[in-house]
Amino acid sequence: MIPILCLVGASDSGKTTFLEKLIPELSRRGYRIGTVKHDAHGFEMDREGKDTWKHRKAGAHTIAISSPTQIASIRTQDREMELEEIAGRYFWQEDILITEGYKRSHYPKIEVFRKTIEPQPICGPSDNCRALITDDEVTTDLPRFGFAEVAKVADFIENLFLKERSKRRVVVNLDGKRLPMKDFVEDFVAGGVVGMLSTLRGWKMPQKIDIHIRIQED
Amino acid sequence: MIPILCLVGASDSGKTTFLEKLIPELSRRGYRIGTVKHDAHGFEMDREGKDTWKHRKAGAHTIAISSPTQIASIRTQDREMELEEIAGRYFWQEDILITEGYKRSHYPKIEVFRKTIEPQPICGPSDNCRALITDDEVTTDLPRFGFAEVAKVADFIENLFLKERSKRRVVVNLDGKRLPMKDFVEDFVAGGVVGMLSTLRGWKMPQKIDIHIRIQED
Repeated sequence: MIPILCLVGASDSGKTTFLEKLIPELSRRGYRIGTVKHDAHGFEMDREGKDTWKHRKAGAHTIAISSPTQIASIRTQDREMELEEIAGRYFWQEDILITEGYKRSHYPKIEVFRKTIEPQPICGPSDNCRALITDDEVTTDLPRFGFAEVAKVADFIENLFLKERSKRRVVVNLDGKRLPMKDFVEDFVAGGVVGMLSTLRGWKMPQKIDIHIRIQED
Repeated sequence: MIPILCLVGASDSGKTTFLEKLIPELSRRGYRIGTVKHDAHGFEMDREGKDTWKHRKAGAHTIAISSPTQIASIRTQDREMELEEIAGRYFWQEDILITEGYKRSHYPKIEVFRKTIEPQPICGPSDNCRALITDDEVTTDLPRFGFAEVAKVADFIENLFLKERSKRRVVVNLDGKRLPMKDFVEDFVAGGVVGMLSTLRGWKMPQKIDIHIRIQED
């Protein structure tokens, strides 16, 4: 699983504006960035009249459109997908996933703060906030960066998440929920799976193995 | 893997228009429909000025936006994704994936044909075409349906793909490519994985297991 960092803050505090500077800075350093935005109200992604829009309007549960340079999908849901599942399903090639919003998640956070918008930072002591981005005076034990200190924030994120790349090799999701595993168990599962599959015709040592199993009801 | 059906035909032959009638007919019968459109030119999915649009413009490799009712993603690619990988990654809950286009794939096809657009059907004998949708006179051995015969086409698709639901339970992808397996091998792999994982704390018999393994280079 890729590391997840939540950029949080009150509405209009400047999260998107800061991300617009942070993403190119991290990309320049060679990282592939994924972002996810939390939307409480229901967004409109496709354009009226396009074929994919017509497919969805006709009742397609999920649509995708694929070209040589990009692929997009829109999926109907009956409940909000957990951040963990989003990361697992949609971000398989990125080095870090930065969320805009998701204040309630347990992932590490950086808060964008502006006194003119909100009197106090929205993150409390139990919110796993790691730093503040603000140009205002504020009493805090957290590291603080100004809105212009994009490179310093990128350093901070690199140190926190990207320098020691995750050693985690095995992710097992049961009905979309991560099964926690200790390192030696990961090694055991990886070894067992590779051992089992390597006896099959068609096997060639890959860089990545994905296994999907549907349990049939009797 | 869900069954894949390609709806093909010359441009302007009426593929989208027919899909707009077929999708609701199949949905009414209780199936979850996925669609994928092939786009050769580069589509524009997001709307200028939206936060997700800004993330991508700033260089995010993949963006997603998630709400309680839908989730959308746009991903940068350096080569076109194979239909098989699209089906595996984006359509995990649908009963059938209907493509618009993908004439060159090896999957079963239905061709939408109009003589005013193209003198002959575009599918040749080796194209795995299973039926024609046309109101024109045409010499063919394939089953033919008129543009208004939506229910009959739905029957045909049900019989071909959906009545005997796929028994395939185990999908193993090595670097995104499907590893072919015989039924007894699938049983062996599924049994081995379930047996291995079921000894772990946190295990509860799920309906679905997804395992992702990254092989580390030494």
